[in-house]
Amino acid sequence: MVMPLALLEKSMNKNISLLLKDNRTLEGKLTGYDEYMNMVLEDTEERTSEQTRRLGVVILRGNNVVSISPL
Amino acid sequence: MVMPLALLEKSMNKNISLLLKDNRTLEGKLTGYDEYMNMVLEDTEERTSEQTRRLGVVILRGNNVVSISPL
Amino acid sequence: MVMPLALLEKSMNKNISLLLKDNRTLEGKLTGYDEYMNMVLEDTEERTSEQTRRLGVVILRGNNVVSISPL
Amino acid sequence: MVMPLALLEKSMNKNISLLLKDNRTLEGKLTGYDEYMNMVLEDTEERTSEQTRRLGVVILRGNNVVSISPL
Amino acid sequence: MVMPLALLEKSMNKNISLLLKDNRTLEGKLTGYDEYMNMVLEDTEERTSEQTRRLGVVILRGNNVVSISPL
Amino acid sequence: MVMPLALLEKSMNKNISLLLKDNRTLEGKLTGYDEYMNMVLEDTEERTSEQTRRLGVVILRGNNVVSISPL
Amino acid sequence: MVMPLALLEKSMNKNISLLLKDNRTLEGKLTGYDEYMNMVLEDTEERTSEQTRRLGVVILRGNNVVSISPL
Repeated sequence: MVMPLALLEKSMNKNISLLLKDNRTLEGKLTGYDEYMNMVLEDTEERTSEQTRRLGVVILRGNNVVSISPL
Repeated sequence: MVMPLALLEKSMNKNISLLLKDNRTLEGKLTGYDEYMNMVLEDTEERTSEQTRRLGVVILRGNNVVSISPL
Repeated sequence: MVMPLALLEKSMNKNISLLLKDNRTLEGKLTGYDEYMNMVLEDTEERTSEQTRRLGVVILRGNNVVSISPL
Repeated sequence: MVMPLALLEKSMNKNISLLLKDNRTLEGKLTGYDEYMNMVLEDTEERTSEQTRRLGVVILRGNNVVSISPL
Repeated sequence: MVMPLALLEKSMNKNISLLLKDNRTLEGKLTGYDEYMNMVLEDTEERTSEQTRRLGVVILRGNNVVSISPL
Repeated sequence: MVMPLALLEKSMNKNISLLLKDNRTLEGKLTGYDEYMNMVLEDTEERTSEQTRRLGVVILRGNNVVSISPL
Repeated sequence: MVMPLALLEKSMNKNISLLLKDNRTLEGKLTGYDEYMNMVLEDTEERTSEQTRRLGVVILRGNNVVSISPL
């Protein structure tokens, strides 16, 4: 059994990909999270089919996140 | 009586299909979950009528899930 | 007085119809539920005006359910 | 002062009309409710400007209800 | 300082206007409310730019209410 | 550090501007609020690019508010 | 590990950029926040691709915020 938060813990300081409710995809290094799945990403990039936008450090609110994938 | 979370427990390490609120369908092996129906899937694939996309390991937020089916 | 959850209890192992927030209608045998109206259905079918799709066993998240009718 | 739940209590075994968030209107005999305004209706009919559909017994989730009127 | 619920209390048995999330406007006499801003209105009318519809007694769920104005 | 509720307190009896989730903008004198950011406004005006509508006293539900600005 | 709220604390009195659920982007100096990620911004500007609008002091409700970036 891999609890969802345990997998976040294992992904610390590694690159992850996030799908948000507004259909944006973010990639960045996970440097923090809390029990609500709020997350801190570094070197974040927003990727769409057309472009890549550098966002740097980002705090994500967990309730906007659909899914999280380690990269 | 099969409690919903008990059925998730029985589905551990088996393939399940998830329908998300944004109408995407994911299939993968359930390797973890918590009381909020957050889930961890491995070998996840997103399937639409047009294509299949390999997503690998995915943490799903339970509040985006509409329904779950063992495969 | 018929409490809503008591009616679910009385519907156990019987066929019910569910209307979901995304306007899909599911029919199946209710084999479990919990206090949040999460439900387990067996022999589930999704019915639209155009087609019937067999879904088998399904866990439904209660917060996606609009209404439930015993059949 | 008429507390909202007290008015539901007074409406027991009487016909009520419900407006749902998805703009459907249901009419039926209120035979049960709980503190979340989940309700049980009997002899329920869904009424739109074009048609009337008989739904029989229905459990309504309170969070889909906009307003309730005794008939 | 006028606490929001205190203003509701002061509006008891007076006419108020409600704007709902679905953009409908209701007017009626406030005859009850609870801590969630669920409300009971009497002699309720729904007003749109095109027409006025008499709804009589209505229980409103507070989470559908955007704003309330004493008349 | 200015806590958000402390800034509301400092704005008491002063004019504020509110942006609501439905994109309406309201201006009025803040005469009350509670811990949920429900608010009471007096001399409220709704402003759109096309018109100004006088609303008088308004109770606003906090969960419909996007942002608040002292004027 | 950088907890999301700790990063907000570190961003106090510095400029941050906020993406809201309605797709607006705000920039301003963070002068306060609370546990719900409600925030107080000063010298706030709303930026769209077409224009910049000065908003001054703004209280933001946390549940409308998608992501936060220190600038």
